[in-house]
Amino acid sequence: MNPITFAHRFDHVTGSAIREIFKVLGRPGMISFAGGNPSLDALPDRLCADIARDVLTEDGKRILQYGATEGYPPFVESLTEYLRARFGFDMEQNGVLPITGSTSGMDLVCKALLDPGDVVLVESPTFLGNMQTLNLYQARLVPVESDDDGVIPQALEQAAKTHRPKMLYIIPTFQNPTGRTLSAQRRKAVAQLAAQYGFLVAEDDPYRDLRYRGEALPPIKTYDATGHVIYMGSFSKVISPGLRVGYLLCNRELLRKCTVGKQGTDLHTPNLNQAIVDQFLRRNLLEEHVRSILPGYREKLDIMLEELSCFPQGSAFTRPEGGLFVFVTLPNGLNATALFETAVERGVAYVPGTYFYPEGGHDDTLRLNFSNSTPQQLRQGMQTLGALLSQSAQAQ
Amino acid sequence: MNPITFAHRFDHVTGSAIREIFKVLGRPGMISFAGGNPSLDALPDRLCADIARDVLTEDGKRILQYGATEGYPPFVESLTEYLRARFGFDMEQNGVLPITGSTSGMDLVCKALLDPGDVVLVESPTFLGNMQTLNLYQARLVPVESDDDGVIPQALEQAAKTHRPKMLYIIPTFQNPTGRTLSAQRRKAVAQLAAQYGFLVAEDDPYRDLRYRGEALPPIKTYDATGHVIYMGSFSKVISPGLRVGYLLCNRELLRKCTVGKQGTDLHTPNLNQAIVDQFLRRNLLEEHVRSILPGYREKLDIMLEELSCFPQGSAFTRPEGGLFVFVTLPNGLNATALFETAVERGVAYVPGTYFYPEGGHDDTLRLNFSNSTPQQLRQGMQTLGALLSQSAQAQ
Repeated sequence: MNPITFAHRFDHVTGSAIREIFKVLGRPGMISFAGGNPSLDALPDRLCADIARDVLTEDGKRILQYGATEGYPPFVESLTEYLRARFGFDMEQNGVLPITGSTSGMDLVCKALLDPGDVVLVESPTFLGNMQTLNLYQARLVPVESDDDGVIPQALEQAAKTHRPKMLYIIPTFQNPTGRTLSAQRRKAVAQLAAQYGFLVAEDDPYRDLRYRGEALPPIKTYDATGHVIYMGSFSKVISPGLRVGYLLCNRELLRKCTVGKQGTDLHTPNLNQAIVDQFLRRNLLEEHVRSILPGYREKLDIMLEELSCFPQGSAFTRPEGGLFVFVTLPNGLNATALFETAVERGVAYVPGTYFYPEGGHDDTLRLNFSNSTPQQLRQGMQTLGALLSQSAQAQ
Repeated sequence: MNPITFAHRFDHVTGSAIREIFKVLGRPGMISFAGGNPSLDALPDRLCADIARDVLTEDGKRILQYGATEGYPPFVESLTEYLRARFGFDMEQNGVLPITGSTSGMDLVCKALLDPGDVVLVESPTFLGNMQTLNLYQARLVPVESDDDGVIPQALEQAAKTHRPKMLYIIPTFQNPTGRTLSAQRRKAVAQLAAQYGFLVAEDDPYRDLRYRGEALPPIKTYDATGHVIYMGSFSKVISPGLRVGYLLCNRELLRKCTVGKQGTDLHTPNLNQAIVDQFLRRNLLEEHVRSILPGYREKLDIMLEELSCFPQGSAFTRPEGGLFVFVTLPNGLNATALFETAVERGVAYVPGTYFYPEGGHDDTLRLNFSNSTPQQLRQGMQTLGALLSQSAQAQ
């Protein structure tokens, strides 16, 4: 046949670089610090088996029939109550929409708001999955400088003045890939700047409940007096990513557009998956389940931080209070992108940090995930990596 | 706040007209011929309860973990075998992608192929849900004339010459809204014209298994020698729409683009839902289940066709061999759009045909669904409608 002409939205999206990385993860014996998967131990398979049978037995006809785009009614109810009680969100001004994983929330927000060429401010580095979603809407990504307390308000204000952005995409808590958390003061500043300069904030908050120490901070959304902040939550990290259930919370006008967009994207999120998460909320299972998985995650993070001492002197790394990732900057121009292949040959995978930067570069950085390895794998993998990096440092 | 500026893709999409119709369906006592829902009797809730518990017990960790965008591996395997055995599709040239209901297949095909202003040929009338999906990609919809055997090849060729379309969207079997089936000869012609004029065919085939009489015809895709035809299948009508599981089958180059697009839309279709459908294929439950639900559907269709005799003389209607819909054209300019409100007041709902026409108009048409009513409701509802229409005819 004639070659197919694909849509221009794919002109700069190949989806391939990072996929090559993930392909090697299945090799026998590979220790992977590359993914962002929850620990298998933390996935409540037996509980979900019972719940799935229960909900299909009790409300099976409604669950198997077409549902409303607006969500499975019992779940919308329990979720609304949960969010009101937990964060004090104003559920008259705001509404909630169950979505098919938080990726689909990002997709719907982009669908509602973005025309090609619209500027979206992003942290630098930021989550590469949602960069791809943004790129498929032909957004122009403009990085905003961050430090250990997250996005710097002065840099954000300057970018708002210079670029007149449509939106800021931000992960304020245990950020992906850095693990950093935006300070409370800056959360307030972000909400104020959004109101002042008229851009929307897509607040992506999937890691919040994986806090191993320190005090939880309120979402940016709680400082939003003007309806500029969209709160995107997910049950992927605290119940199951395979179920694909998250939610959007935002002002009702924007939520309506997202809902109409969703009619054309997947009609509705599967009812069964919403019904399962609904039971976690209704039976108060979520809090207990989260409490039960935190100690294992905390131990793994601590092992990884401890083992970072075997990295070459001068390595800098984040010390997150939660989440799934540690971000490392190597000394003396050591190149984590170039070393990746050798690391994989030695049986350890990570993600070179360059993929998280909208502008590329930063080859001296890497992201390490600790949740999906055993303590023994963490020690062994970190020591293998440390030895490789030290060799390379000496060879320079 | 300042009013939000939404993306231009929403300029002509409100999603509101038809929603107003569906809102009234929940009223107590309403007889609805408006939806496209399977019969509640046909939804295998007990079987799904057992299967859901079984798959989560046996493969729960993998099901609850992140899955591949390419699909849950056991399902990809069983689905590939099923499609090869059933239709003889060449599964080297073609690949299959599990999707979150067939709406999401349409979304991914549009995402891969369409830039704003691209021409998409559609049947007239056609499925309004996918018209909305197409409109959200700012496609220019051009209707192609149909008769009782479906799209007319000469009209399709003329449209291909005149409009240089990117794609044809077509429902060849028990079409929504008409119930018509494209003849075998025309199926072949459609595939040949696509190859000759270089447009793609999105073949949407969710109703195929709901055949109550007559012989099944091969998909357009079986006549496709050049990779121009995309086959979109769904388990919504034969297992459950609430599970949201369908699939795309097309040449591997295009499938790759759809897969990269899906990474940014919902990452992957929930594993649990794929695992449930997988069991229907593996345990050979699908064929038996379909066989068990057909007699009930056939009876309902026959009642509706019989009761159409109480519509005013001169009413024309389709006589489908399967599917969920009968399409009616009223005589003497009787206006189904205008009469809708009165029909609802009398306790019967339908969808005015005008919503299915990309160009609007055709107010003398309506779509009737028979699957979601009991035999008694069918008789009562059709008689109520017949009486209303006869009154209106006399009042003219």
